[in-house]
Amino acid sequence: MAKYMCLDTLKFFLFEVHEIQSVFLYKKHLEYSKDTALLVLDSTKEWADQDFYPYIKEMDEKPVYFKDGKVYSHPVLKKIFSEAGQNGFLGNYFEEEDGGSQMPFSLANASNHILESANNHIPGYLGLTNGAAHLIATFGSQTLKDKFIPKMLKGIWGGTMALTEPQAGSSLSDLTTGAELLEDGSYHLKGQKIFISGGDHQGVENFVHLTLARIAGAPPGTKGISLFVVPKFLDENGSLVYNNVETVGDFQKLGQRGYSTVHLVFGEHGPSKGFLIGEPHKGLSYMFQMMNGARIDVGMTAASTATAAYYHSLQYAKERTQGRKILNSGKKNISEQPTLIINHPDVRRMLYKQKAIVEGSLSLLILCSKLQDIAICDTAEKQKNALLLLELLTPIAKTYPAEMGKTAISNGLQILGGYGYCMDFILQQYSRDIRIMSIYEGTTGIQSLDLLGRKVVMENGKALHLLSDMILSTIQEALGVEKLKPYAIKLSEKLKEIQEALSYLTTYAVQGDYQNYLADATIFMELISNVVIAHQWLAIGLKTQQQTTNDFQKEFYISKYQTMRYYFKYELPKTKAALETLLNKDKLTVESEDEPFLL
Amino acid sequence: MAKYMCLDTLKFFLFEVHEIQSVFLYKKHLEYSKDTALLVLDSTKEWADQDFYPYIKEMDEKPVYFKDGKVYSHPVLKKIFSEAGQNGFLGNYFEEEDGGSQMPFSLANASNHILESANNHIPGYLGLTNGAAHLIATFGSQTLKDKFIPKMLKGIWGGTMALTEPQAGSSLSDLTTGAELLEDGSYHLKGQKIFISGGDHQGVENFVHLTLARIAGAPPGTKGISLFVVPKFLDENGSLVYNNVETVGDFQKLGQRGYSTVHLVFGEHGPSKGFLIGEPHKGLSYMFQMMNGARIDVGMTAASTATAAYYHSLQYAKERTQGRKILNSGKKNISEQPTLIINHPDVRRMLYKQKAIVEGSLSLLILCSKLQDIAICDTAEKQKNALLLLELLTPIAKTYPAEMGKTAISNGLQILGGYGYCMDFILQQYSRDIRIMSIYEGTTGIQSLDLLGRKVVMENGKALHLLSDMILSTIQEALGVEKLKPYAIKLSEKLKEIQEALSYLTTYAVQGDYQNYLADATIFMELISNVVIAHQWLAIGLKTQQQTTNDFQKEFYISKYQTMRYYFKYELPKTKAALETLLNKDKLTVESEDEPFLL
Repeated sequence: MAKYMCLDTLKFFLFEVHEIQSVFLYKKHLEYSKDTALLVLDSTKEWADQDFYPYIKEMDEKPVYFKDGKVYSHPVLKKIFSEAGQNGFLGNYFEEEDGGSQMPFSLANASNHILESANNHIPGYLGLTNGAAHLIATFGSQTLKDKFIPKMLKGIWGGTMALTEPQAGSSLSDLTTGAELLEDGSYHLKGQKIFISGGDHQGVENFVHLTLARIAGAPPGTKGISLFVVPKFLDENGSLVYNNVETVGDFQKLGQRGYSTVHLVFGEHGPSKGFLIGEPHKGLSYMFQMMNGARIDVGMTAASTATAAYYHSLQYAKERTQGRKILNSGKKNISEQPTLIINHPDVRRMLYKQKAIVEGSLSLLILCSKLQDIAICDTAEKQKNALLLLELLTPIAKTYPAEMGKTAISNGLQILGGYGYCMDFILQQYSRDIRIMSIYEGTTGIQSLDLLGRKVVMENGKALHLLSDMILSTIQEALGVEKLKPYAIKLSEKLKEIQEALSYLTTYAVQGDYQNYLADATIFMELISNVVIAHQWLAIGLKTQQQTTNDFQKEFYISKYQTMRYYFKYELPKTKAALETLLNKDKLTVESEDEPFLL
Repeated sequence: MAKYMCLDTLKFFLFEVHEIQSVFLYKKHLEYSKDTALLVLDSTKEWADQDFYPYIKEMDEKPVYFKDGKVYSHPVLKKIFSEAGQNGFLGNYFEEEDGGSQMPFSLANASNHILESANNHIPGYLGLTNGAAHLIATFGSQTLKDKFIPKMLKGIWGGTMALTEPQAGSSLSDLTTGAELLEDGSYHLKGQKIFISGGDHQGVENFVHLTLARIAGAPPGTKGISLFVVPKFLDENGSLVYNNVETVGDFQKLGQRGYSTVHLVFGEHGPSKGFLIGEPHKGLSYMFQMMNGARIDVGMTAASTATAAYYHSLQYAKERTQGRKILNSGKKNISEQPTLIINHPDVRRMLYKQKAIVEGSLSLLILCSKLQDIAICDTAEKQKNALLLLELLTPIAKTYPAEMGKTAISNGLQILGGYGYCMDFILQQYSRDIRIMSIYEGTTGIQSLDLLGRKVVMENGKALHLLSDMILSTIQEALGVEKLKPYAIKLSEKLKEIQEALSYLTTYAVQGDYQNYLADATIFMELISNVVIAHQWLAIGLKTQQQTTNDFQKEFYISKYQTMRYYFKYELPKTKAALETLLNKDKLTVESEDEPFLL
């Protein structure tokens, strides 16, 4: 079987770089240790080898399809749901009382990396089921919990999040799906939802749609949105009764073609019953739990898909011979045998690029996962700080892997030359699969507005201070290691570039000119995420010098150290361009004339 | 019909920015004038509207396929070949004595832009037929010319270039297809060729493969390569006799699925007769005529595909409403109607980005086309200079549209959000179609080695001096226009960055260390191509201020001026990052250990 991810790298990030051992000390996770964690990872890898990776190409070639009101998915999905119920993947991070095994997010998300690398079309089904059940567990009544969670965690029912509507797109203020109170306290839902991932397929017998809707008479905008559980079938004493949640079509997509995306209609040809979660009009705040989790998941899917692509291109580069190395004289010796293409500097650059992006992304995502654990389990003060930092990092951890993962895979495809463009090789598939990641769960533009417009300014910029402290502390440590000194100095310069950009942008905010403050939010995202990933690489570099365990070979540490060098030479300099753009006073994109765009 | 390109922009670039009127003064082109040129463009547009654009989606959805030794293409292809013969598109730039109409390249390539924008799957078939026939016209004997050119220019026979072999890929030194001299002076060819674009289909009755092969006993390497005309069928007194050129398969591709790509086997089940072009062992030098033309064509295909994508995303942005503009207070007024998405600054940025890339690319390609004309028609000294500059610009004009065109289309797709990822919308198709452009005719890595390793150093750097003089002269002119002064100053700084990078790199070349001189050639390509496109934008900016004709409305000039502003704010700053990388002394990618890449 081709290598699609690296367990060693994952373990190195978990146990050396981010030292997640510390979260095993929390009361919630006392049943976990490094040893049990290793078992979890190894058994997840076995599962992925057996039931995920073998279907990755087939799920693309025989995509999900819609016929006569039903969506048909790959048959392995039924098996996987059932296994995920049995092996405890479903509900893994839930409290024991909710049917979970209280697994730390650090470990649960690490497992997810393995599955997503093996086959990015499958884990979304499970992740949404987990997310939906977890939301019910957190905010739902005991009745709702009892009614839905057990079946979901057994993999008999699937979960979804139903937000987007045709006329509203990303603008949730404009959603119009209505909910009318019934005498028994439940509601009738009516409306349409599109782009519902995992919203219909043959892997489970029922669907639990967590649906945003507006109770009749609710205020306009996002303050009038409530959250409902709307199952496709109602469970009436053990028998399933159709709840008029119609699948009217599916979306055939560029990639992730084994992952169903459907169009649902509620209450059109009969009543669709829904159950309110929590209080009316507070639906969006509950939904954020699931949305934030989903953002981390999307980042992980992107990082993992690009990881699989990296290893496939690496394998090609180590097998394919072509051309000869350029001699110092500038000539080639054609009497030599052709060399492996991995020996061409430009191919090595493209391999490093992929490695730097995918591993930097993975490391950041593990950091975020650890923050999720701290935010739940630690002392109140530490919880609060972890949550703030996590909120700041979430849009970055979603966007960087999505945006740069595309570039990484494009470089992987390029290594294969013409073959990369052929359907027989999987690189082209990964390039299609990853393209949705910068659109799912809020586009890059929306993540960037969230970052600059909300996360940077919340609590007077405290989250940014926490980030800065964390980075400075790594720099401080690295300054003490001779080999890392130049990198530490470089990173501290870059930290100042963020400050410089923000000082300038803030002059707009202070003047009450939020249009200009936010106009280049996407460029600010490029700047800060580059620095955040450089920090990951410096932290990784540190561990290559400390080598606290004997878990890895010398070559392993060298490979990480070299990749850090790549990042600082080829990627980090790009912050300068972003900074120059941010400081430019030309306000081109907020000018209101339409003339530049003639049709 | 949706807008897929802009005739006004094309005319503005031709007649104002690059003033191709001057090439109509050459003796060769005396039958041309601005008026006849306008007629050519308008009739090409009609042809494209009628027979190219309507099939773009269908050719993707019902791709070329291989069955029982034959390749089946879209039926419209037969009609198009026949029309291209009748309307003179085939052979347009040829000498009259070769059956052409002596059309300037500037105009022929401009026509090609229209066709490529309408449907990038079709013009390649015609372009290769033109290229192959032109090569025979230039280097072939009268017998070969008489035998092949007339049928090709009528669109009855198609032409191809057959270079790549399975074991050799881009390394032509290693090709092994053999040629054995026969008594009648012709040769028997034996070997395999892959990735042959337009190499088999149902649009023509015969194929003329310009095939690189090695005559028995020839020296190794590229110095032993000869060029042969190998038809699929021999014309024996009017009847076609099979020449044992077998199509053994086709390549199913990520994009350009209506454009056939085949695997040919020569002489396996019977003799394949070939006719030598020119002298033995000089085949590669002849082939370069076709290859250089093909590089410009690929750049044009990339620029044109991205142009079509731009207009499709623009149309969406002008029709789709979503969300509201952010008020100065940072809030949104939800009682307002949702706004058109074109009013969101980040959407405007993505539109500008596309426009800046596609129009900058198109302008550069027209400059190259004009240089092609000068290089053939002007005085000896001017011919020589034009050729030098053209040789320098060719890898850039191929690579920039290919690499940045991908990014442009990705931004176009992003504007459509989730719909961009759906197969019903064409953006996803364009994103697949363009992906091959940085691989066709030499990958970006190979173009970059050509640029830095050969073009920059030829004749002691004279081509670079010519480029620099041309840019400085535009800067000089722009310094005299108040509104353009800051842009002119900025561009002159950037010109110095190229010098700085080269001064540093040259220290390696001088020490005879070509490995390090060339290791970051791709980054040098990024730097210089960014500056070259910025120069196009300054030249365009100049014309918006001079407005020498009344051909265009005020809004038209504004749209170009604004896009220049975009380029200088958002794209040009990236040279700084490239420069910093180039000056970095870390020689990571030329280190020879394999350790960093563990499998």
